[in-house]
Amino acid sequence: MTETVHNTEGHGYLATFIGKNGRFLILRVLSQGLVTIDLQCSEGDDLAHVDHLLDSLEAKLKTLLHGTISRMKRLPALRRGADVDRYWPTADGRLVEYDIDEVVYEQDSDYQNIKILHSSQFGNILILNGDVNMADSDLAYTQAIMGGGREQYAGKEVLVLGGGDGGILHEAVKLKPKMVTMVEIDQLVIDGCRKHMRKTCGDVLDSLQGDFYQVLVEDCVPVLKKFAEEGKMFDYVINDLTAVPISTAPEEDSTWEFLRLILDLSIKVLRPDGKYFTQGNCANLTDSLQEYEGLLGRLSCPVSFSKEVVCVPSYMELWVFYTVWKK
Amino acid sequence: MTETVHNTEGHGYLATFIGKNGRFLILRVLSQGLVTIDLQCSEGDDLAHVDHLLDSLEAKLKTLLHGTISRMKRLPALRRGADVDRYWPTADGRLVEYDIDEVVYEQDSDYQNIKILHSSQFGNILILNGDVNMADSDLAYTQAIMGGGREQYAGKEVLVLGGGDGGILHEAVKLKPKMVTMVEIDQLVIDGCRKHMRKTCGDVLDSLQGDFYQVLVEDCVPVLKKFAEEGKMFDYVINDLTAVPISTAPEEDSTWEFLRLILDLSIKVLRPDGKYFTQGNCANLTDSLQEYEGLLGRLSCPVSFSKEVVCVPSYMELWVFYTVWKK
Repeated sequence: MTETVHNTEGHGYLATFIGKNGRFLILRVLSQGLVTIDLQCSEGDDLAHVDHLLDSLEAKLKTLLHGTISRMKRLPALRRGADVDRYWPTADGRLVEYDIDEVVYEQDSDYQNIKILHSSQFGNILILNGDVNMADSDLAYTQAIMGGGREQYAGKEVLVLGGGDGGILHEAVKLKPKMVTMVEIDQLVIDGCRKHMRKTCGDVLDSLQGDFYQVLVEDCVPVLKKFAEEGKMFDYVINDLTAVPISTAPEEDSTWEFLRLILDLSIKVLRPDGKYFTQGNCANLTDSLQEYEGLLGRLSCPVSFSKEVVCVPSYMELWVFYTVWKK
Repeated sequence: MTETVHNTEGHGYLATFIGKNGRFLILRVLSQGLVTIDLQCSEGDDLAHVDHLLDSLEAKLKTLLHGTISRMKRLPALRRGADVDRYWPTADGRLVEYDIDEVVYEQDSDYQNIKILHSSQFGNILILNGDVNMADSDLAYTQAIMGGGREQYAGKEVLVLGGGDGGILHEAVKLKPKMVTMVEIDQLVIDGCRKHMRKTCGDVLDSLQGDFYQVLVEDCVPVLKKFAEEGKMFDYVINDLTAVPISTAPEEDSTWEFLRLILDLSIKVLRPDGKYFTQGNCANLTDSLQEYEGLLGRLSCPVSFSKEVVCVPSYMELWVFYTVWKK
């Protein structure tokens, strides 16, 4: 390998090596005895040979630094530029690699980038603007945002905000409600999920209208306003909008104010003994969760709330769900 | 920044840059238009400034490559050499970063490296020889390996192989069994878990003997042989040994043969209507799962089995659990 030693101006030893097939190795020896080695190789390189190279390197380091290594760790390779992107960081910013092997659906709608990717363990995963939303494996999400199985939906009037994957609608209509009204802004989400997320939505998205449901492909804000004006009330309002909700005409400057507008309108159309369900955030984002709970204390109508931490398989992080009701 | 352009002998453009604070940037332009940029910085560097640098770089790339970028992705930083190691790859070899903030317990026993690390969402996590075993969040694991809540433990005789975290023992004694016998080889696992995994084990490891249980700190193989010789029988045998089981005197050459020995002995001490439960492997390692199922077909006593895929929160991958019974 061809070696270059770089002048780091007092920041440890740094050498780079060019090998065959365009392999590139970066060796750093930092203060406090940390040695980092990066090996880059390109598509089509012999990975078994690369692994063997790293094994030899490890063995050599162990011999050279005989008995003085307190920790040694080799991380799985990062794959960049592949047809299928396997890295979808968690909401709290951690690097996680998914077992994704296929891009099933990809569209840029007027509102967002929509991807449905196939994971060998989670099945198809809906990803909106880079956020993992829902996978075939995630009935736990739908159950949590419907009240954790503790509610009686039979004969009830239900409003779903968002929910374009059809998961809530599919589960709700099984429970013989009086009527479920779902308001989803993005037809292309519905189209993708109807075709590729059938474990989640069943056949419920095959038609925008059924015996116990209707789907309005509209911005939920004007719809909520209309319902509020008309005095239309619901037993359950389920807010399944994306973390940063999308509107065709956002009237509020900040996301938080927009969230408050939706919350206020939702509580307005909620029967006195009704319940409002929503997903909150990942359990680790305690500041955001606190801010949301603060918001709940500043609504036009006083409310109480409870929360539950749920494991949604494809999220790779625990998620907080809220139940809100009028005081 | 100081620039070095490297000769890759026809494998694309490669330049490295040394910046202030020992920052090191690697820029590669590979075939098919892939551009990779790595920025390394050291502990104590100004991370806000580094982020700002990357923002500017992204903006500049967008301007330079005006309209021709089809995908751009920035991955969260890898942190190497930190006091707390946050990378514990999944059983199927994927890179995942945990939200670990503290080393709670670390011991090298005669058998294995034992770590208990604190995760802000999962609580304390027991890691044996680098494998995530059990976290405060993982009651789902214990429930799955006890038969998924479908079994009647009252008045039953139960044998637990391994299980040093005390999770199974803690749940089983609540169900008023006749007697639970747990055989764990590693006293240091018990010691660590008794102190730091109390959400999992409760107070059950405070004593090695209780009203409905006894813990034998022994290699399970000779114990199983003794039980088999004495004709001692159990209603449930729960194999909670590590993926590669540890024995003081392994008699078999391969892991698979050793697994078979334990299985054969376990089935021997199982009542005719008894059940054997075990964890299998991650759902993605289909070859290993098939090999295990093949093994079940080659035992001294013919058996049938069922399996269930379960989400164990701290594993970040779906896991397969088996139930085995005599034909």
